[in-house]
Amino acid sequence: MERLSKGEKTRSAILDAGVRVASRLGLEGLTIGSLAEASELSKSGLFAHFGSREELQLAVLERGREKFAEVVIKPALKQPRGVARLRAMFENWLDWTESAELPGGCPMLGAAIEFDDQPGPLRDAVARLQREWMESLARTVRGALEQGELRADTDVEQLVFECFGIALVAHHHRRLFGDRKAHQRALDVHEQLIARHRTAAPRQPAAR
Amino acid sequence: MERLSKGEKTRSAILDAGVRVASRLGLEGLTIGSLAEASELSKSGLFAHFGSREELQLAVLERGREKFAEVVIKPALKQPRGVARLRAMFENWLDWTESAELPGGCPMLGAAIEFDDQPGPLRDAVARLQREWMESLARTVRGALEQGELRADTDVEQLVFECFGIALVAHHHRRLFGDRKAHQRALDVHEQLIARHRTAAPRQPAAR
Repeated sequence: MERLSKGEKTRSAILDAGVRVASRLGLEGLTIGSLAEASELSKSGLFAHFGSREELQLAVLERGREKFAEVVIKPALKQPRGVARLRAMFENWLDWTESAELPGGCPMLGAAIEFDDQPGPLRDAVARLQREWMESLARTVRGALEQGELRADTDVEQLVFECFGIALVAHHHRRLFGDRKAHQRALDVHEQLIARHRTAAPRQPAAR
Repeated sequence: MERLSKGEKTRSAILDAGVRVASRLGLEGLTIGSLAEASELSKSGLFAHFGSREELQLAVLERGREKFAEVVIKPALKQPRGVARLRAMFENWLDWTESAELPGGCPMLGAAIEFDDQPGPLRDAVARLQREWMESLARTVRGALEQGELRADTDVEQLVFECFGIALVAHHHRRLFGDRKAHQRALDVHEQLIARHRTAAPRQPAAR
């Protein structure tokens, strides 16, 4: 960050504000106008950075992706390959959807509902980011398989599907009902999901 | 339906169109204007039925609730109390979210995301309807417990939570990725969820 020019710094601050607006009002609610209000920048100043509303929305999605990588994926990659990393990915994901920086929940999950039936660049971007994340989870599960920590007959795609469902319901219950138990329940259910696929004792990688 | 007056029939047809608009554009996208366009009724005609946009939105939510009861709950109640009914509830729910009458997916799940951070009558109505449905599911699970088909140590709230997660991820994958395998995967995962809680052999209710 320290090497950014003034213009880049401004753009970065605008995008951070954009992610917060998208979390609260949805990507649909993210307009040059609503962002001007939230960021205290002038509309004309914002237009100088983003030529169109769609360009702004796409840039905010991309900024969300960067933040997600920073907050969810990178710290999890510090955990050893295997179940520990899978657990960290899931926990960080839950934390992300509840973080103070996202006052209205995960903007990606919101955008998935908003744009699922509106063909175009935004829908494509949302679908691509969500697939990317599913692929990261799948890679993590395969890592745990290769470490011999999960049973060889584990259906990777199904495990990721179930994982995704747990995160979605936790997000739904927390956001709609203000259910504070949803977080712990999600962690418990995820732990049970892992336990069902654990090998009795981890094998040595060399033994495979 | 045959006993409805002309005015009631018109209102009912308007609300059906409103449910379809809400499915496609979200409850946020449901306005007197967008409904006039979809239903080929005049704006002034619609205003005669609904004094305000919020009144229209609330009436459409209520209509969605009636349709849900008709399509999901009532047919399931024809199944015997127990696992068969739980299975029917879940299958009908999945079918509902994919039905041709809901071109943009389940309007309740959409509304849950739209209104989760907008306090007011709409958010309250959405939360109430979703809680009502969760309570129906919980009642169905307790029925299966009382029939001795599920183990006595079954955590009813957790089972409903997991059930909800499976439906949410199926909806998400189907809507966003056009994933046609999501339906069968959801049924399989739900069946495994039930299997984990099944008693070895159903007990006689009298034995409890």
